[in-house]
Amino acid sequence: MWELAKELKAMVIFGEHRYYGQSLPYGKESFKDPTKLQYLTSEQALADFAVFIDYLRSHWYPGQKVPVIAFGGSYGGMLSAWFRMKYPHSVQGALAASAPIWQFTDLVDCGAFLKTVTNTFKHHNPTCADNIRNSWMTINKVATTETGRKTISDTFRLCKPLQSIEDVGTFKAWLQETWVDLAMVDYPYPSNFLEPLPAWPVKGVCSYLSKPLTPDVTLLSSVYEAVNMYYNYTGQASCLDINQEATQDLGTMGWDYQACTEMVMPICSNGKDDMFEPVKWNFDDYSKQCQKQWSVTPRPMWPIIQYGGKNITTASNIIFSNGLLDPWSSGGVTESLSASLSAIIIPDGAHHLDLRSTNKNDPKDVTQAREKEKEIITQWIKDFYN
Amino acid sequence: MWELAKELKAMVIFGEHRYYGQSLPYGKESFKDPTKLQYLTSEQALADFAVFIDYLRSHWYPGQKVPVIAFGGSYGGMLSAWFRMKYPHSVQGALAASAPIWQFTDLVDCGAFLKTVTNTFKHHNPTCADNIRNSWMTINKVATTETGRKTISDTFRLCKPLQSIEDVGTFKAWLQETWVDLAMVDYPYPSNFLEPLPAWPVKGVCSYLSKPLTPDVTLLSSVYEAVNMYYNYTGQASCLDINQEATQDLGTMGWDYQACTEMVMPICSNGKDDMFEPVKWNFDDYSKQCQKQWSVTPRPMWPIIQYGGKNITTASNIIFSNGLLDPWSSGGVTESLSASLSAIIIPDGAHHLDLRSTNKNDPKDVTQAREKEKEIITQWIKDFYN
Repeated sequence: MWELAKELKAMVIFGEHRYYGQSLPYGKESFKDPTKLQYLTSEQALADFAVFIDYLRSHWYPGQKVPVIAFGGSYGGMLSAWFRMKYPHSVQGALAASAPIWQFTDLVDCGAFLKTVTNTFKHHNPTCADNIRNSWMTINKVATTETGRKTISDTFRLCKPLQSIEDVGTFKAWLQETWVDLAMVDYPYPSNFLEPLPAWPVKGVCSYLSKPLTPDVTLLSSVYEAVNMYYNYTGQASCLDINQEATQDLGTMGWDYQACTEMVMPICSNGKDDMFEPVKWNFDDYSKQCQKQWSVTPRPMWPIIQYGGKNITTASNIIFSNGLLDPWSSGGVTESLSASLSAIIIPDGAHHLDLRSTNKNDPKDVTQAREKEKEIITQWIKDFYN
Repeated sequence: MWELAKELKAMVIFGEHRYYGQSLPYGKESFKDPTKLQYLTSEQALADFAVFIDYLRSHWYPGQKVPVIAFGGSYGGMLSAWFRMKYPHSVQGALAASAPIWQFTDLVDCGAFLKTVTNTFKHHNPTCADNIRNSWMTINKVATTETGRKTISDTFRLCKPLQSIEDVGTFKAWLQETWVDLAMVDYPYPSNFLEPLPAWPVKGVCSYLSKPLTPDVTLLSSVYEAVNMYYNYTGQASCLDINQEATQDLGTMGWDYQACTEMVMPICSNGKDDMFEPVKWNFDDYSKQCQKQWSVTPRPMWPIIQYGGKNITTASNIIFSNGLLDPWSSGGVTESLSASLSAIIIPDGAHHLDLRSTNKNDPKDVTQAREKEKEIITQWIKDFYN
C-alpha cells in the first residue's frame, strides 16, 4: 500500500476496528459482558468505516471528488470486500487480500483449511508432513502416564508441565495452531508478522523433520526442535508457553468474541488428506464453549445471510488475492466471478504476501500480482473521474 | 401485488416492520426509553427481512432456486430499494413505489415537498390554493385575541377549544398536515387509506374553496367545510380533533422516533412557490424537539452515509415509481439512473397508486405503469432462472 500510494499520490489511512487496539468503547470494561460487547460486529465496523470516510471526504476535501480504495488482508480483507458490497458509494473498489469470505458453514469443505496447511508443509518436504501426522499418535501414547507427560514437558521445555489429560489437549491444540501459523507466515524472506522468523519458515522447521522418524520420543524431540525454531528463533525464550498463543498481540479477545457470534468458521480434519488428528466439526461443542466463555450463542448462518455467501455477483470492483501456501486460501475466492470481481492467485504466496513491501526475494508471481492489482485499481480511479 | 402474484403464480408475504403493529420487541414497554428503542432502525428492519427471506427459502423450499421480489410503498418503498441495494443476493429486484429516498438533508430542495402539495391543489383549482395561502394570515390575525380564538374553535367545531397561541400553532400544523395528506390520497376513486374519502378528494375539498374569498371569517368557514370533508366524509364526527392525526393507525409512534434518529426529512416553505406559511427548515429546533420527546439526537446525514444518497448507480434491478400528485415524489427518483434502475412516472397518480388494486377509474398512466412494472419484474425472474 505504501509503495502504491506514493506512486498514485494517494493518502493511506488506517482505521482501527472497534474493540481492537486503542478503540475500546468502554475502555477496560469493553470485554466485560455481552451488553458491553453487543456493538462488536462486522456490520458496526463497516458502518464505522463509512462514517469515517464520509468525515474525511467532507472535512478534508469539501466539495471535491475524491476516490477511495479499500485495502485489507485476512479479516481486514473480508471487511474490505464486504465494505465495497455494502457501501459501493463510499469506495470505488476494494483489494481483499487473503480474505476467506467463504470459510463459513456449508460454503466450503471444513477439511480444506488443514489440508492446505498440510500441502504447504508437503510442498517443502513430504516427509515433514508425515512426521507431524505421526506425532499425534506418539503424543497420545506417551501422554497416558504421568511419567510420559513429564517426558513431553521436559522434551518441549514447557513453562508449565502437563498435569492432566486436559493439559495434553491444550498442548496438541497449541501444536496444531503452530503448524497453521507457520503455513500462514511462510514468507520468502525473514519476517516478523507473528514471530521473528527466517525466510521460508516452513522449510526451516521441516529441516528438523525431513527424514522418516520412528514414532517415539525421538520424533517428539525433532518436533520440539521444529516448534522451538518458530517460538524461539531469536534464542531468548527460556521455555515454551502453550497457553500463550503467538498471535495475542493482534487482538485475540475481539476476534475470539466475533468467532463466537458471527464469524463461525468450521474447520475439521481426517488425518488422511491432512497431517492432523481426525477431528469432526462439532457446532454444538463449539457453541457450548462460546456460551461458557462469552455467554453468547453463535449464529453460524448470519454472515451468509448478511454478506450473500456465494451469491455475490451483483457486486463489482473487488480484487480477491490469495496465496496458495496460505491456509486461508481454502475459504477465499480463487476464481474470478465477473469482469469486475477478479481473483488473483499467488502460487508461492503465504498470508497476504501481496500486501507486504516489495522485497528482493519476492517470488515472481507476487510481483505480477501487485502489477495486476495496480492496473485494476488505476482503472477504478479513472472510471471514477470519468 | 395480489393481482400480479396471481398472474405470476407467486406467494405474497407481508413482513411486519419491528416496532410497528404487533411486532413489539419489548411489548408495551417498547417505546419507553432509548435503551428499548435502540433496535428500531431501518438497518435492523432490513436485516429482519434478510433473515425472514432466508428462513422462508430454506424451510419452505429447501434446495430450490426461488426468486424473491421486494415490494413497498412510501417508507416501505424506501426499505424495498435499500434492501435490494444492501441484500442483492436475497431479492432479485425491488419495486419502490413513492419512495422518497432522496428526501434527506441537502439532496433535494426542502421546499419541493410543499410545492408539490400546492401543485396538486392548483391542478384541480388554482383559486383553491390561493385561498389556502390566504387562510394562514387570516388565522394569525383572528387568533391574536381570546374572542378570535373562540371564533376559530366554533367555526371549525374543534373538540377542544384553542386556549393559547401555542394551541393556534398546533391548529395550523394540523391544517397543514391535512392538506398534505389530501394530496397524498388524491386517488381517482373513493378510497379509505387514511380516511374514508370520495374520488379525487382534493377536487372535493377545493369545491369549497373554488372562488376567490375575502380573507376573513368567511374564508375560514370555507376552509372548515373543506377540512370537514376530509375528516368527516361519513358524517360521523361530532367535532374535529386537532391532536389526533388521521394517520395514527399506521404507527406514528415508530415513525416519530425514526424521524428523530435516522429519518430526518427537511421540509420548508416560502409562501410563494407554495400555499403555506413561510417556515425555514431549522434543524436545531427539530433536534431540540427530538431531545425533548425521545431523548435522542437526530443524525441527519446518516441515511446518506448508509444508503449512498445520489450515488447509487452501482445498484441494479430497482423500479422507482412516482405519482406526480404525491408530495413525496419531490424526494423520489424520477429519472432512470441506469438500464436496471428504472424510474416510472405516473402523472395522475397520488401516493403509490400503482400498488393499489386495479379500478375502472384508474387513469391510463397508472395502468401503463403497472404493465411496465410487470414486464420488468418478469424479466428479473427470467434472468434469475437463467
